[in-house]
Amino acid sequence: MIKRFEVKTTAAAQMIDITAQVKGLVRAQNMSAGMIVVYVPHTTCAVTINENADPDVKEDIIENLERLVPSGGRYKHSEGNSHAHIKASVIGSSVNIFVESSTLVLGTWQGIFLVEFDGPRQRSVLVKFLPD
Amino acid sequence: MIKRFEVKTTAAAQMIDITAQVKGLVRAQNMSAGMIVVYVPHTTCAVTINENADPDVKEDIIENLERLVPSGGRYKHSEGNSHAHIKASVIGSSVNIFVESSTLVLGTWQGIFLVEFDGPRQRSVLVKFLPD
Amino acid sequence: MIKRFEVKTTAAAQMIDITAQVKGLVRAQNMSAGMIVVYVPHTTCAVTINENADPDVKEDIIENLERLVPSGGRYKHSEGNSHAHIKASVIGSSVNIFVESSTLVLGTWQGIFLVEFDGPRQRSVLVKFLPD
Repeated sequence: MIKRFEVKTTAAAQMIDITAQVKGLVRAQNMSAGMIVVYVPHTTCAVTINENADPDVKEDIIENLERLVPSGGRYKHSEGNSHAHIKASVIGSSVNIFVESSTLVLGTWQGIFLVEFDGPRQRSVLVKFLPD
Repeated sequence: MIKRFEVKTTAAAQMIDITAQVKGLVRAQNMSAGMIVVYVPHTTCAVTINENADPDVKEDIIENLERLVPSGGRYKHSEGNSHAHIKASVIGSSVNIFVESSTLVLGTWQGIFLVEFDGPRQRSVLVKFLPD
Repeated sequence: MIKRFEVKTTAAAQMIDITAQVKGLVRAQNMSAGMIVVYVPHTTCAVTINENADPDVKEDIIENLERLVPSGGRYKHSEGNSHAHIKASVIGSSVNIFVESSTLVLGTWQGIFLVEFDGPRQRSVLVKFLPD
């Protein structure tokens, strides 16, 4: 079973908390225990798990990836978004999250984030259910 | 069920599209729906999902990882391939891919790549099937 | 089924080999074939697979991540551990490992490592079993 939802990003680079949407899908699916995989079918955005409390963390992540792989750097790929492809492979296209008692097993400070590197765009997020 | 195939890399650093081999295994396995995990049992290469259209993207990824973690840098590990170990952990040893209607659920531009950081070598790729 | 164990890290940044603990859990669980996922419910440490032979590899990984994302750099997040959040997303919060004949399918040089970026601390490691 694969579920899907859409996310509208509003900036060139941005971390968007999608934890609530993912939790909602798990509740609707009525899966009591198992694992889910959150996946983006894109090559210039990524998905990661990080702190959902202080929004400065999101900005620091975005800014430091930009410092390391600048959007204005020199690349061969002519579309101008090579930096976004590189960042996407560094962060990755999916995360694993365990499910127990019908809820996500996340640490106190953990949230799930779509990481946009070539926005603003509409992005799809796919969630696969692997029930026990 | 784990399937395996071999890849001969031909350069020190290189991204090799292995999507066709993985698709072939899924077809042969006759798995209609579920998830597969593509894994490399190595510590100086990695696996990632990225653009399979313009080959410049692959070169930009390889060149920028080399810029950030130079093969000619100073490292303690005496074998001379510490840069490759570092890059391998940054990109990762496996990717998750969903399967539906007996085919991989990949975005329009997504391909699966073995990323060689210490070649040329013969590499193994393992594919695990997690049917629904 | 999720199993958990604790790891005491002893330095600010450190790679700790947890392969033996994970192997022990798989043996105790009596899972003959399938996949496990090793996950950290934290946002300033990570988990990776890399070389378990020469300890210099671990130091090179830690030192180069520190070079790229310095703990003494300028960040907005006021807790002083933004560098650790960034590194955690670069390396990732989980790894997939296959199981066959009741043992982990690891390459000759592969070990599983908790990667501490904001220690010393006590960390939890969660292991999910996905039997065939």
